[in-house]
Amino acid sequence: MRGKILGLLKKHSGNAVSGQEMAQYLGVSRIAVWKQIQSLKKLGYQIQSRRKSGYILGTAPDLLLPEEIKHGLKTRKLGTKIYYLPVIDSTNDYAKKLAQAGAPEGTLVIAEKQTRGRGRLGHEWFSPTGQNIYMSLVLRPNLHPAQAVRITLLTGVAAALAVKNYCGIDLGLKWPNDLLVAGKDHKKAGGILTELGAESDRINYVVLGLGLNVNMRVSSLPGEVRKKAASLMESMKPIAKINRVELLQAILLQLEIQYQLFLSGGWDKIIENYRRLDTLKGRRVNVKQGNEMVSGQVAGMDNEGRLLVRSGAKTQSVIAGEVHIV
Amino acid sequence: MRGKILGLLKKHSGNAVSGQEMAQYLGVSRIAVWKQIQSLKKLGYQIQSRRKSGYILGTAPDLLLPEEIKHGLKTRKLGTKIYYLPVIDSTNDYAKKLAQAGAPEGTLVIAEKQTRGRGRLGHEWFSPTGQNIYMSLVLRPNLHPAQAVRITLLTGVAAALAVKNYCGIDLGLKWPNDLLVAGKDHKKAGGILTELGAESDRINYVVLGLGLNVNMRVSSLPGEVRKKAASLMESMKPIAKINRVELLQAILLQLEIQYQLFLSGGWDKIIENYRRLDTLKGRRVNVKQGNEMVSGQVAGMDNEGRLLVRSGAKTQSVIAGEVHIV
Repeated sequence: MRGKILGLLKKHSGNAVSGQEMAQYLGVSRIAVWKQIQSLKKLGYQIQSRRKSGYILGTAPDLLLPEEIKHGLKTRKLGTKIYYLPVIDSTNDYAKKLAQAGAPEGTLVIAEKQTRGRGRLGHEWFSPTGQNIYMSLVLRPNLHPAQAVRITLLTGVAAALAVKNYCGIDLGLKWPNDLLVAGKDHKKAGGILTELGAESDRINYVVLGLGLNVNMRVSSLPGEVRKKAASLMESMKPIAKINRVELLQAILLQLEIQYQLFLSGGWDKIIENYRRLDTLKGRRVNVKQGNEMVSGQVAGMDNEGRLLVRSGAKTQSVIAGEVHIV
Repeated sequence: MRGKILGLLKKHSGNAVSGQEMAQYLGVSRIAVWKQIQSLKKLGYQIQSRRKSGYILGTAPDLLLPEEIKHGLKTRKLGTKIYYLPVIDSTNDYAKKLAQAGAPEGTLVIAEKQTRGRGRLGHEWFSPTGQNIYMSLVLRPNLHPAQAVRITLLTGVAAALAVKNYCGIDLGLKWPNDLLVAGKDHKKAGGILTELGAESDRINYVVLGLGLNVNMRVSSLPGEVRKKAASLMESMKPIAKINRVELLQAILLQLEIQYQLFLSGGWDKIIENYRRLDTLKGRRVNVKQGNEMVSGQVAGMDNEGRLLVRSGAKTQSVIAGEVHIV
């Protein structure tokens, strides 16, 4: 209901809408409308009340509210159900619980702040409040667990395309799951954490987590993290604050496009795009794969999405691991 | 404490142990000993109390109690922590919750009865009370999710070896997860359900479920299931009730052996054993792999554990699926 009232106010943006008319249109009492208006004001919406003409919507709060995300969202599945959390330990952990309880494909978890944000391999993901995007999606692809890594790779492609389209910023990808701001220092602007629940030969659910530094000032980060981090706002020329709701909508749409492409046999096109965005090719790396260390020069990626590392005449394909650039 | 008292009684089997001595030995009061004796009696242990000489242990109840399983268990890791549940919806679901809460490798869940026992692909696993084995183990191998299916395969090998050793019954394996009683009709005596929680490129936990029809009368099953089911007891010649505790101990030991063999690079030996136990080779099958149907004659298994299905000049390797014998 709150979403519907917000929708009506947005439709008449700049003009007053009478409480009476909204009440009739929605089939509720004027008091009910008034209550929802108060609730919107509490969230930070500026709404003027004029005794004769009704309510006029002013500025919206800088929050990733479901009502805002859904307004104008062009996806068919992703984000049709949204859980919005001002603060949560980890959106992935929350989404996993939802997935285990049967949440359908496309369920989206959004938080303004994470108190225990995680990256791959248990690394911390610094998640200050109200400036960035911390999201997790529940997916239910009919796939073998071996293919889950492709979800990570296609998400990188989707996020880079969406950021390019919406902000004009070139992102690069660092295999398998990092989003870098292109340029000579390649600082990290985002990361992907794909988790799954599965039987040994089929996926039950995937929780796809994406953390993206949007409007954060990197100088606000603690020392160690600061050196390696970037934000999209600070990568804009000139520096400019980004509308997080619209960026999120663009990401969800690109994700849906790439995900459908993958499921309908278009993996080759995705990996082609990944190669174009890849920042590791030609770099000398050490890759920790389990207890083994693979060292050499990155020759590229094979069609399965494995990293090819060449050392002398020998090329090794790495299925998983942590890449350190030498 | 209860386990320790039971241990003392077992050590002196047939002879009385005085409550006074046990209390001293364990550093507790005689009342405390008496309370534990009452608790053991409640579980079904027959214990005689003799005024002068003390307590004499009679027969044990036919239950998979942790005290019984641990007594004489030869494993180093598997089953060192046991959760015993007279009734549970599903031992795998219970073990998954434990795994998510951080339960260590080797944690064992045992139930006398499951109300919603599951097999692969959501199939029901009929789980009547007190006659069979329903167990789930938490494992934490440092593996890629693609390798989880090997846990299923090695469990089949371990269960078949343990049943052969302990009961003298030849089991056959039906790829990937069924345990059959060898013979011309190949009825199902057990099944394996391997589930995992993972990041896209590394396993966080595996829950390894095994259901085994031990002392059940197949005639007690509902019609449809009855036709395809077998129990170990009814496969003994002559028919004989099996000591579930000792069989379970044998299975845990074999599982630990095969699991350690796998982790230390001995996969080839495991797959060799699987091939020896395989019942599908040469059979004409239809395999449903996702939305695809693969038909032909089974040529065997490759070294990765994939089923090879030959049709004319073409051989397809099947990574996952449901096999129907034509």
